[in-house]
Amino acid sequence: MIWARIGRNMDTMMDLKRIKGVVAPVVTPFKPDLNPDPQRFVDHCRWLLTQHCSLAVFGTNSEANSLSVDERIMLLDALIEAKLDPAAMLPGTGCSALSDSVALTLHAVKSGCAGVLMLPPFYYKGVSEEGLYRSFSEVIERVGDSRLRLYLYHIPPVAVVGITASLIERLLKQYPVTIAGLKDSSGDWNNTRTMLNAFAESGFDVFVGSETFLLENMRSSGAGCISATANVNPAAIHSLYRQWQSDDAEQQQRDLDMVRDTFGGKYMMIAAMKAALSHFRGDPEWHRLRPPLIELSDMEKRTLIAELANIGFSIPDYNA
Amino acid sequence: MIWARIGRNMDTMMDLKRIKGVVAPVVTPFKPDLNPDPQRFVDHCRWLLTQHCSLAVFGTNSEANSLSVDERIMLLDALIEAKLDPAAMLPGTGCSALSDSVALTLHAVKSGCAGVLMLPPFYYKGVSEEGLYRSFSEVIERVGDSRLRLYLYHIPPVAVVGITASLIERLLKQYPVTIAGLKDSSGDWNNTRTMLNAFAESGFDVFVGSETFLLENMRSSGAGCISATANVNPAAIHSLYRQWQSDDAEQQQRDLDMVRDTFGGKYMMIAAMKAALSHFRGDPEWHRLRPPLIELSDMEKRTLIAELANIGFSIPDYNA
Repeated sequence: MIWARIGRNMDTMMDLKRIKGVVAPVVTPFKPDLNPDPQRFVDHCRWLLTQHCSLAVFGTNSEANSLSVDERIMLLDALIEAKLDPAAMLPGTGCSALSDSVALTLHAVKSGCAGVLMLPPFYYKGVSEEGLYRSFSEVIERVGDSRLRLYLYHIPPVAVVGITASLIERLLKQYPVTIAGLKDSSGDWNNTRTMLNAFAESGFDVFVGSETFLLENMRSSGAGCISATANVNPAAIHSLYRQWQSDDAEQQQRDLDMVRDTFGGKYMMIAAMKAALSHFRGDPEWHRLRPPLIELSDMEKRTLIAELANIGFSIPDYNA
Repeated sequence: MIWARIGRNMDTMMDLKRIKGVVAPVVTPFKPDLNPDPQRFVDHCRWLLTQHCSLAVFGTNSEANSLSVDERIMLLDALIEAKLDPAAMLPGTGCSALSDSVALTLHAVKSGCAGVLMLPPFYYKGVSEEGLYRSFSEVIERVGDSRLRLYLYHIPPVAVVGITASLIERLLKQYPVTIAGLKDSSGDWNNTRTMLNAFAESGFDVFVGSETFLLENMRSSGAGCISATANVNPAAIHSLYRQWQSDDAEQQQRDLDMVRDTFGGKYMMIAAMKAALSHFRGDPEWHRLRPPLIELSDMEKRTLIAELANIGFSIPDYNA
């Protein structure tokens, strides 16, 4: 382990382009026929980059597990063709099928992406640590590219299958450079702290899955957050990331929490964000989800918009 | 609802080729490079047909959710090319991505399969009934083929997302001919009985997900079972299906339960069945699973084989 850590530190010191800070799990727009809409997708990603967000395209909030491999490849290619910088991209590539995870990860690496954010295979439940180790290891070996940076994605409330500290330790030992970090969407700060204490020192980047924990994460040597709300409130979240040592950091955190609670408190978060994007962009096309997720009802949307007005929240125009 | 039922009964009376009885969720063999092995797959399916089993290829026990869409299509094509009868096939086509479920269902219908067994989209949890209705409805509408017979797959211990009676009622009302039945792998006889009471009379075929409930299901107007153990013990399960009204039906049920308990009691069922197939066929290639699932250890395999010997169980040769 010692040699692995030393090797790791030397390599990560040279990994100057590691993604840090605020990363948006980009929501995916759909056309009336429910096919993904590459133009609106590119527009939204370009705007997020202007807000200093990196792009975790194809995350849970992207409805990525409702997309086929080919659909994700088409959308990533659209970003590259539009000259968005792949060094700011962290596409989700973890599927329930090993062959799908390999295909998507290979495509991401060949496209020059900064890394991939990988769910464990999530259909079978109660699987062994050995089985999960083999899953990640097979992807890494098959991709076989030293440029690969793999961020493990821990989201037990949705995937049910989780990522344990002992699995990370085993993967880091075998792949000290490739295994780059973790997104912790457990919603459990104790779990995040355990991961930080165990691995942050060796250059393993821990992102929290909600900006609710951003300040605590930054105070504990974390790398930032990969959070749904970055789709709608990126500037304020980035501000706390930059100013976490400032005097008003706790006030900033409380303000972020109020916005997040408004979106996620009683609404399905993805539907609420799409409703807000649709409203503030004046673009009804944004208010569409792919089954099994559904849009907010008219009444829910009206209530949400009123609640956002109450707290003085709006999403600026693309050109603002 | 009354008109739907009348329409349904008239159509299902003409649906003479409906699959009934014992259906095997066919285990999938893998090569050393973890690619699926079409030759062994065809051999195993051909043998199951000689044992009066229909073929639920690409079920949970098939490790189907560890296979890509292309891999499933390749395997189904191998069966068709080998002249196995698609009228005996019920491929699993439910994926987390809508587009994948559509592609697989379309391919199954075009291949002449008797029906498809469809999981709900299983990544997002806590989704609404409306969202699940739209998921199934979109697949049916996009496939747009009157030959489609769709069996809903309820397996909450694995998929977590389940199929409720009110969802079935809504789907049956809109698609009285297409919605053909349910596989209930809840392991909860009360749930199965609820489904039978609500829908069996209208020609909706309820299969239990384990032969443990086969006798009760047959006594309650069920259609049969789609059970893992049919991969290794097909003849005995089929015997109870044929003789459920005989005097020794309860003894047959107890004998089936003893075999099932030996495979599934303390072992991972899929790994145990593959270990037994490997042993009795003298073919080590069968003892391989795709991550995240793993094979039995040598000690587990030896213990399983000894326990099977203790109860006088063996799997006959392909030619027996």
